[in-house]
Amino acid sequence: MAKLVFIRHGQSEWNALNLFNGWVDTKLSEEGIRQAKEAGELLAEKGIEFDQAYTSVLTRAIQTLHITLEEIGQLWIPEEKSWRLNERHYGALQGLNKKASAEKWGDDQVHIWRRSYDVLPPLQDSIQKSITVDGRTYPALDRRYAELDPKTLPLGENLKVTLTRVMPFWEDKIAPDLRAGKNVIIAAHGNSLRALSKYIENISDADIMGLEIANGQPIVYDFDKDLKVTNKELLAK
Amino acid sequence: MAKLVFIRHGQSEWNALNLFNGWVDTKLSEEGIRQAKEAGELLAEKGIEFDQAYTSVLTRAIQTLHITLEEIGQLWIPEEKSWRLNERHYGALQGLNKKASAEKWGDDQVHIWRRSYDVLPPLQDSIQKSITVDGRTYPALDRRYAELDPKTLPLGENLKVTLTRVMPFWEDKIAPDLRAGKNVIIAAHGNSLRALSKYIENISDADIMGLEIANGQPIVYDFDKDLKVTNKELLAK
Repeated sequence: MAKLVFIRHGQSEWNALNLFNGWVDTKLSEEGIRQAKEAGELLAEKGIEFDQAYTSVLTRAIQTLHITLEEIGQLWIPEEKSWRLNERHYGALQGLNKKASAEKWGDDQVHIWRRSYDVLPPLQDSIQKSITVDGRTYPALDRRYAELDPKTLPLGENLKVTLTRVMPFWEDKIAPDLRAGKNVIIAAHGNSLRALSKYIENISDADIMGLEIANGQPIVYDFDKDLKVTNKELLAK
Repeated sequence: MAKLVFIRHGQSEWNALNLFNGWVDTKLSEEGIRQAKEAGELLAEKGIEFDQAYTSVLTRAIQTLHITLEEIGQLWIPEEKSWRLNERHYGALQGLNKKASAEKWGDDQVHIWRRSYDVLPPLQDSIQKSITVDGRTYPALDRRYAELDPKTLPLGENLKVTLTRVMPFWEDKIAPDLRAGKNVIIAAHGNSLRALSKYIENISDADIMGLEIANGQPIVYDFDKDLKVTNKELLAK
């Protein structure tokens, strides 16, 4: 029996501004920090002793992990970061306002980009190392991805592509830990966690985009030794 | 050419109370958080791009690392924690007030315990999983050391013993990174950093205890490819 806990990062600076965030590296907003603390308080009540933490290479998820672990007195557990747990890359939409995008392309088109399983967003023309919004520059595809084959770097992803690049991390890291009976905590993003949930819970392509994962509300899965889910619990106040 | 940066953690709750801290897991005080932020501001001016972070399994060092890295926008670099970077274990002195200890055993004796290279402090009678001070219980030799041979767990250390258990971490992790040209940041403790400094700078047994490493003031070493120090710089406001 092993436990796996998902935490979607708290609200980011760009979530607060209603901008498409994707792989652009933004920090938690004050509200996001509060949500991460609340996730820690909720987890503290469960008394789970974690063996391993995973997170993306994006600051908002890493901050969420650290705040949560500090809250439960387990900041010392091993932590590994991977781009495979990153948010879905939102292509040319990154840095754009969601409302303005709907006005430009129409509600229906933007809804398709946001909520279809296999339609790609408009792609970026080329790899952008950073994106400037309102005079402030935010890192994007910078040196943290230096060891990757440049052809691996996305110019835009749908959930299907996101699932494809998340799965090796499940196979190589998370699943072996759970089979070894380790309790694992993952702080990541709406779509990388949605992709993992789709696989774990066998959710269909049609149904998966209806699965909402709220900021800072931990999801606790129990697995048996064959990696079947025996329980799923959503923690919320 | 590679750079190695040492940061001694900011003031801990027990530093603030003038208690021997050692392997007991305490958090940063408000002042300690401020010092860690200042360390980040000082480092930001240097513009060093780090490839790897190391820290101990003690919360005050991990917090210091995270605060510093967030300040320089590099929270995403790989991080590894090891008990080998822990503070010197202060034996039966852990949790005691430094002033009260001097009154009990005499200034000279306590000075010897604190400042001699190879005199052991009074040892603990047995492994203590936690220590209670003023009604609050702090973790000590708890499950974070579960994978170690119990005989490895110290009941008290001097700097000589500390150096002996830090060195494998230098040999196996830090030195290979530096030889590969990686820039490394280590957030750790007065005595684990003193031990590393002794080795790196060839400081004698007699002189090493005179080396003071201030909380939150980064030390930047430059190495050539043969791991000779070509420059050492202390950053302070």
